[in-house]
Amino acid sequence: VTRESDFIEMLRPLATAAAARSFADDAAVLEVRAGTMVLTHDMLVEGVHFLPGDPPGDVAWKLVAVNLSDLAAKGARPVGALLGYTLGEEEWDRAFVAGLTEALEAFDLVLLGGDTVAAPAGAPRTFGLTAIGSAEPPVPSRFGALPGHLLWVSGTIGDAGAGLRILQQGGDGPDSLVRRYRRPEPRLAAGERLAAISSAMMDVSDGLLIDAERMAVASDHSLTIDLDLIPLSDSYRAWGGDALAAATAGDDYELLFTAPAEAGGFILAVAEETGLRLTEIGRVGPGGGLHLTQGGRPLALPERLGWEHRRAG
Amino acid sequence: VTRESDFIEMLRPLATAAAARSFADDAAVLEVRAGTMVLTHDMLVEGVHFLPGDPPGDVAWKLVAVNLSDLAAKGARPVGALLGYTLGEEEWDRAFVAGLTEALEAFDLVLLGGDTVAAPAGAPRTFGLTAIGSAEPPVPSRFGALPGHLLWVSGTIGDAGAGLRILQQGGDGPDSLVRRYRRPEPRLAAGERLAAISSAMMDVSDGLLIDAERMAVASDHSLTIDLDLIPLSDSYRAWGGDALAAATAGDDYELLFTAPAEAGGFILAVAEETGLRLTEIGRVGPGGGLHLTQGGRPLALPERLGWEHRRAG
Repeated sequence: VTRESDFIEMLRPLATAAAARSFADDAAVLEVRAGTMVLTHDMLVEGVHFLPGDPPGDVAWKLVAVNLSDLAAKGARPVGALLGYTLGEEEWDRAFVAGLTEALEAFDLVLLGGDTVAAPAGAPRTFGLTAIGSAEPPVPSRFGALPGHLLWVSGTIGDAGAGLRILQQGGDGPDSLVRRYRRPEPRLAAGERLAAISSAMMDVSDGLLIDAERMAVASDHSLTIDLDLIPLSDSYRAWGGDALAAATAGDDYELLFTAPAEAGGFILAVAEETGLRLTEIGRVGPGGGLHLTQGGRPLALPERLGWEHRRAG
Repeated sequence: VTRESDFIEMLRPLATAAAARSFADDAAVLEVRAGTMVLTHDMLVEGVHFLPGDPPGDVAWKLVAVNLSDLAAKGARPVGALLGYTLGEEEWDRAFVAGLTEALEAFDLVLLGGDTVAAPAGAPRTFGLTAIGSAEPPVPSRFGALPGHLLWVSGTIGDAGAGLRILQQGGDGPDSLVRRYRRPEPRLAAGERLAAISSAMMDVSDGLLIDAERMAVASDHSLTIDLDLIPLSDSYRAWGGDALAAATAGDDYELLFTAPAEAGGFILAVAEETGLRLTEIGRVGPGGGLHLTQGGRPLALPERLGWEHRRAG
């Protein structure tokens, strides 16, 4: 098992911000401007959110990405992060730090500090990340959906779920799908732009349907999604995936948001500007709960809407 | 095992701040004024930092207190916290929330959000807390000790270590010592006042000697502590504890700080004002490393200075 002091040495090149105090102090000290901060903390547990055989760099990436996806859904720009790390074997820990470094660079995030602990021998390891962002109001919540507004989703749905299935079945399938499972991309640029016009926004982590149902319940209005409108990638279709499996698979880390119909032009401009597909998939109505249609005709909800025990993100 | 939604219901009464968004959103949204924020994250692992049989309320208290002790050492006032929680048995989790509630009230801290996860069956549980504070500059580091400055410590040393020993030996000893182990008190009021005059400050968590050595190394100067000056409580003396055992025991969560000699009057005024003992125990000198004296005469350092693998805090 890596010694704490050795692990901190591995991390040292990441202590680029003055606020990090070279990872040599009790706490990070950050100068902030007056405004709105967005704070989130998500954990990954070995054997629950990742497997011992997963590439450590991908575990690090995912830990960062799932937290930043929460910031993206609030329209926040990443400012810094604190890492909670359970020490493991040195080779694993080195590869984790390499993946962490990649993720921090990719998302322009600085590591401010954190804690390292030893776990009892053989115990599954737990990692936590606290991400801090800054946002311009309004900061959308998941409970603001309004009747008459339209429901949109970013990117394509189901790719990551297919990637997980491919890995579980021994790796026979497109790399692009596996990559979407292992290296999710938080939709930071789009989230920041869309926050201005969204009546509600959240990220899709447990499954499009279950997360949409949560938005409906939180907003106390109904959400209706048309299955035929859910955006699927060519790779996902070629792999043989269908819309219902995509909508219940989870791990998408896409943005789900509602906006007034007149915001459509703005939303499509954001799509063009960020290179991210943004698709209208339904609408907010009176009443409550989640409803599904296909080509406009009512469809019964599947028994399972997604991951019931919310996983990190 | 408690369901996540049930655990969030247990926590709901703690969502008193608007920033917490009723624990129903992806992230906390906090309005901040321009200034200095202090951020820390510490973890507690079952079987490492606490035992399965420890009272859950005390585990919660300690999780809060060890993090706030880091804020205290930077002179910061608590603003909010994020909790990373591994779900367990319902009765345990309820008692944890009760202790958490007590700690939050005691230290005027609000819970802003966090994450809950399930661990694989039988796995040790891991908890994390991120504490956010605000501070007025200057924010002392552990690397600012200057030759000629005096070294001070708050409270009494060794009580918590004795408390741990008492518990390990079956509970025969003063409750006051056990309480100092189970319910440490972060020195927030004193830390906030002392930050203004401290050249270096940190909290004592792994042992007075090992933490002082870390301050000496970080500051690149020597620290000399006189064993006879280390403040011991009457209960600790009556229990039969000596100064060397106290200085290497850990879990004190007291403040260790250096200040110019002329600050002595101010420091004693802070002691009076806060009701917290503040004791001069040594000095900063040229050279490097930690040195020990007894009644002014050099004393060899013990082989073990404290907890080498830093525990949470």
